[in-house]
Amino acid sequence: MATSVAEPKRRVIFSGIQPTGVPHLGNYLGALANWVQLQRNALPEDELLFSIVGWHALILPQSPKQLSEARTDILAVLLAICIDPRRSIIFHQEHNPNHTELAWIFNCITPMRKLRRMTTWKSRLAASKNQGDDAEMDETELNVGFSHILATHVPVGDDQTQHLELSRVIADQFNRNFKAKRQLFPPSKGILSLRDPTSKMSKSAPDTSSRILFTNSSSQITSKIRSAVTDSISGITYDPVNRPGTANLLSILAACKDENVNKTVSGYAGKNHGALKADVTKAVEEKLKGPRKEYEKLKMDKEYLRRVAQEGAERARVKSEATMMEVRERIGLL
Amino acid sequence: MATSVAEPKRRVIFSGIQPTGVPHLGNYLGALANWVQLQRNALPEDELLFSIVGWHALILPQSPKQLSEARTDILAVLLAICIDPRRSIIFHQEHNPNHTELAWIFNCITPMRKLRRMTTWKSRLAASKNQGDDAEMDETELNVGFSHILATHVPVGDDQTQHLELSRVIADQFNRNFKAKRQLFPPSKGILSLRDPTSKMSKSAPDTSSRILFTNSSSQITSKIRSAVTDSISGITYDPVNRPGTANLLSILAACKDENVNKTVSGYAGKNHGALKADVTKAVEEKLKGPRKEYEKLKMDKEYLRRVAQEGAERARVKSEATMMEVRERIGLL
Repeated sequence: MATSVAEPKRRVIFSGIQPTGVPHLGNYLGALANWVQLQRNALPEDELLFSIVGWHALILPQSPKQLSEARTDILAVLLAICIDPRRSIIFHQEHNPNHTELAWIFNCITPMRKLRRMTTWKSRLAASKNQGDDAEMDETELNVGFSHILATHVPVGDDQTQHLELSRVIADQFNRNFKAKRQLFPPSKGILSLRDPTSKMSKSAPDTSSRILFTNSSSQITSKIRSAVTDSISGITYDPVNRPGTANLLSILAACKDENVNKTVSGYAGKNHGALKADVTKAVEEKLKGPRKEYEKLKMDKEYLRRVAQEGAERARVKSEATMMEVRERIGLL
Repeated sequence: MATSVAEPKRRVIFSGIQPTGVPHLGNYLGALANWVQLQRNALPEDELLFSIVGWHALILPQSPKQLSEARTDILAVLLAICIDPRRSIIFHQEHNPNHTELAWIFNCITPMRKLRRMTTWKSRLAASKNQGDDAEMDETELNVGFSHILATHVPVGDDQTQHLELSRVIADQFNRNFKAKRQLFPPSKGILSLRDPTSKMSKSAPDTSSRILFTNSSSQITSKIRSAVTDSISGITYDPVNRPGTANLLSILAACKDENVNKTVSGYAGKNHGALKADVTKAVEEKLKGPRKEYEKLKMDKEYLRRVAQEGAERARVKSEATMMEVRERIGLL
């Protein structure tokens, strides 16, 4: 019975997104496009779970009304970009109580000193003094997603590797305390602000022209990319350190065309920022057009969204319940 | 629908005990006897919930095997002292996922600085450096029991009033954040170690003669009370400051006879410690004899215990689910 959960070769792929508003281009080209690719490349025996993590969003103050709407919006986005509810389990985290149960259990074995060492903990601490930082991460997040992180394969952003380190520490701790054996592993890319290309594109930056939202119209995209900060060096080269704005546009273009940035930049010998921006605008519009239209249609179909969420929740619960039975038995609470 | 939960005059009485071993006399005469009395004195419309809080026990390292056994032992104890599963809801906390769900939500609105101010947090911090302290309390405990503390009436030990204060702070915070209105209120007594009457009777003190367990035999009770530390002052007076050992024996006697300690001590004018100890021995044996016998019988009936736990869990879930629906709606996660 302790061996019932993980067959060695079948991967379980889990990832989550916070319902803190319509995703921006960075979210889409980063994590969300990754999800679509994971789904496309998964082997038939692989299992995929994508969660809208409402409990994580509570870590920062939220407007209940906005939070409630954002949950449905993100679900519509996931379906619009072709996360397929027949192939993948799509669910609202808060429909699966196993997440907070395991969070409690892991909290009990995680020493404060390990949390305090985390960069996110420190920066969140600093941010909470200033207020209004981007809501994308917090150390507590670790705990809740954990029932599934324990399972196996996790796509994460570069800035989250430290969390994964802590996950590993906590998982090891659990395994040491309660005798289990599992593995974890990481990968990703980063889209920067169009106004300040030294920081990430962010949902909460005051200047809305710093980000392109999933729902932005063709003319909004055009105007935001036209005003994107680059540099006064002539010609186009990929140099993230000295030319972050230009490099960011190249990254966006490469991501939209799904090609390596070195290949992308090779087409710009002798061209200028104007040509690059025109191509980026076209590529982004091309990338967003279809999903945006699908999103607007899905948003109207509340009953379908409700059904997808309910079915996803049931499938996620069945899966995590099997793990939790093993956890409860191992800790003596069965 | 936001008004469906609390009828103004009907009280909901909730309390919990950790499954960290067979209760000692201090647990019994303190919290557990209180529970029996609460059940006896409750009005017909009052609801009573008594929980065996396994998730709390995880706050300190536990042997899974011992923890698992202790859960059943405590359930048998509760039934043996006449907590009546037809009158009261008796349940294992870990059968009700609403507890960790609400714990997560309250964690998100509780600033660290409030926790750090707690005496328990500080002493637990100190204790964790030394190891092996009594497992009775931790600040995280607050969170989990909270779904029900929010409901109303809580019997607590004197040393827990600070937790109740924090509960109040968190509840206020929740009400401010999410617009609700409820009340809380406290009461209790403290039995001390028989070997060191300056500290509480404790499940984990190395010297087992410092405590009388619920399951101790008549001869064990006799020998432990005979060796109880008192003082060399002749005669019997109730003076907790200067004569803590003697006062403790008087407290035990008063609690066993269910009378005020001033009345108890009035019978000992001109008597000595020998007479007091003889009476305490007799009273404790009298108090424990019946429940102990009932306990031994119940412990054999695993099927009955399982059924009581299952029915209690179902009733507790129905009740807390109503509260949680309201909470989820209010925070935007419904």
